[in-house]
Amino acid sequence: MSLAISIVTIVGMGLMGGSLGMALVKAGACKEVRALVRREEAAEEVLAQGAAHVAETDARQLLEEADLVVLATPVRTIEAQVSELQRFVKSGAVITDMGSVKTGIVKAMDNLPPHIGALGGHPMCGKETSGLASADPALFRKRVWALTPSKRTDPRALSLVETMVEATGARRMVLSAEKHDTAVACISHLPYVLATTLMEVAKDTATNQPEIWELAASGFKDTSRIAASDLTMMVDILATNRENILQMLHRASRGIDRIVGLMTDENDEGLRDMLSEIRDRRIGMFQS
Amino acid sequence: MSLAISIVTIVGMGLMGGSLGMALVKAGACKEVRALVRREEAAEEVLAQGAAHVAETDARQLLEEADLVVLATPVRTIEAQVSELQRFVKSGAVITDMGSVKTGIVKAMDNLPPHIGALGGHPMCGKETSGLASADPALFRKRVWALTPSKRTDPRALSLVETMVEATGARRMVLSAEKHDTAVACISHLPYVLATTLMEVAKDTATNQPEIWELAASGFKDTSRIAASDLTMMVDILATNRENILQMLHRASRGIDRIVGLMTDENDEGLRDMLSEIRDRRIGMFQS
Repeated sequence: MSLAISIVTIVGMGLMGGSLGMALVKAGACKEVRALVRREEAAEEVLAQGAAHVAETDARQLLEEADLVVLATPVRTIEAQVSELQRFVKSGAVITDMGSVKTGIVKAMDNLPPHIGALGGHPMCGKETSGLASADPALFRKRVWALTPSKRTDPRALSLVETMVEATGARRMVLSAEKHDTAVACISHLPYVLATTLMEVAKDTATNQPEIWELAASGFKDTSRIAASDLTMMVDILATNRENILQMLHRASRGIDRIVGLMTDENDEGLRDMLSEIRDRRIGMFQS
Repeated sequence: MSLAISIVTIVGMGLMGGSLGMALVKAGACKEVRALVRREEAAEEVLAQGAAHVAETDARQLLEEADLVVLATPVRTIEAQVSELQRFVKSGAVITDMGSVKTGIVKAMDNLPPHIGALGGHPMCGKETSGLASADPALFRKRVWALTPSKRTDPRALSLVETMVEATGARRMVLSAEKHDTAVACISHLPYVLATTLMEVAKDTATNQPEIWELAASGFKDTSRIAASDLTMMVDILATNRENILQMLHRASRGIDRIVGLMTDENDEGLRDMLSEIRDRRIGMFQS
């Protein structure tokens, strides 16, 4: 099945779903983009923003003709929707998603009947603002879009989703759900918890010294930015990727302890060696 | 003494000193900007970049006519230079600095002879790149420039340095060296240690999963950015603001432990309450 002749139904039109809809509409990548939303007003907004050709609140109506269904809700909602919505999906259709944690979602997909194709997905991009109002058709451009197939994912489903990913300007990266979840615990969820911790310490410190907010410069702003991420999304992530995140937090605590140790020992040389290696890695990492 | 008829000598032409020189030259804010550098080639670079009218390696020659001396080297170098360079400074001149930790520097300034004016200073801005090549005359624009007077700071010294700060486009904020050092431990040095910790965990995780670097998106980049800060500057900061930073790291560890506890207990409501308050604070903080 080719994407060009497919009806794509996106479930949930927040930052991710909305941006995907806009990107597909703009690229003329498929036959029609349909958006399943919860409220009538949301449907109007979706159409006004050009994020879909059709927007409705009725699941059956929106899903029954869909060739490709993209679930773009928080992780635990996606896990539930995979089984709840499949009864409206026609034989031969493919279900994918945009959720941040993949193991549970892929497990739910593995329980789908064989006549429905399925493949987990996660675009590696975001914003500290959420909702359709922040959606941007260029959100995925040059970003990595992780695809996490399971044993039941057939080449046809993979190919259809890959074509959609390419239409948004993203680069696909195929890896297992388990590997994905460890990786994002480190490069996405740990940064969130650290940003949150920084904000909490600052909040405490500000009780006696309110002037810290005025003194805070770009370093603080950068490091704390993602503490403003969407709450429902983040609570779902902390719940569904718990073990991996706890492991990363354990490593982070050990890292802080190590710096505390070097500082307490006034070991300038040890600090310099450690920080120097980290600095070189950071500089080398994102030259572009 | 008015800045307009003053000779300003900047000691050290890295990111901070170089940017200050450029800003003062560009604004035509003083009679002459002179730059004291360590190497002949640096003198040529300073002049080529328009960061001073005169650049030399001879301390006596550069300092003996200066009305305002600005020390723009790492913290411990400034502490040493306050006493080492004062013998070249004429009676009635004012010494200020751009160092990141103020208590030790202000203590050194308190030992200056009474015929030299003195006032600690710290512009709250930076970049993850360092050196004259990164200097920018607009670096201070709309930023806060902390001024930390001691009992010996007279109104004349304060006024001269304030005029210089205003000429760069910065806003001055007067506070004690002690208050400054607690504040920056929280809003500048803690973010650095957390960024560094994040990079270290990522480095460890990448040993088994090198693909994390390709998956890392803007959240990771923002949160780790300042791990690339200048090393000598940061080691000096960790050494001279040790007690305040250790206290902030203790608070951060407790903050992480609290999140670990809520996650381990699968206390979604507790997590949501905690993260919600922090998120609101972060959103409210930097609306501009």
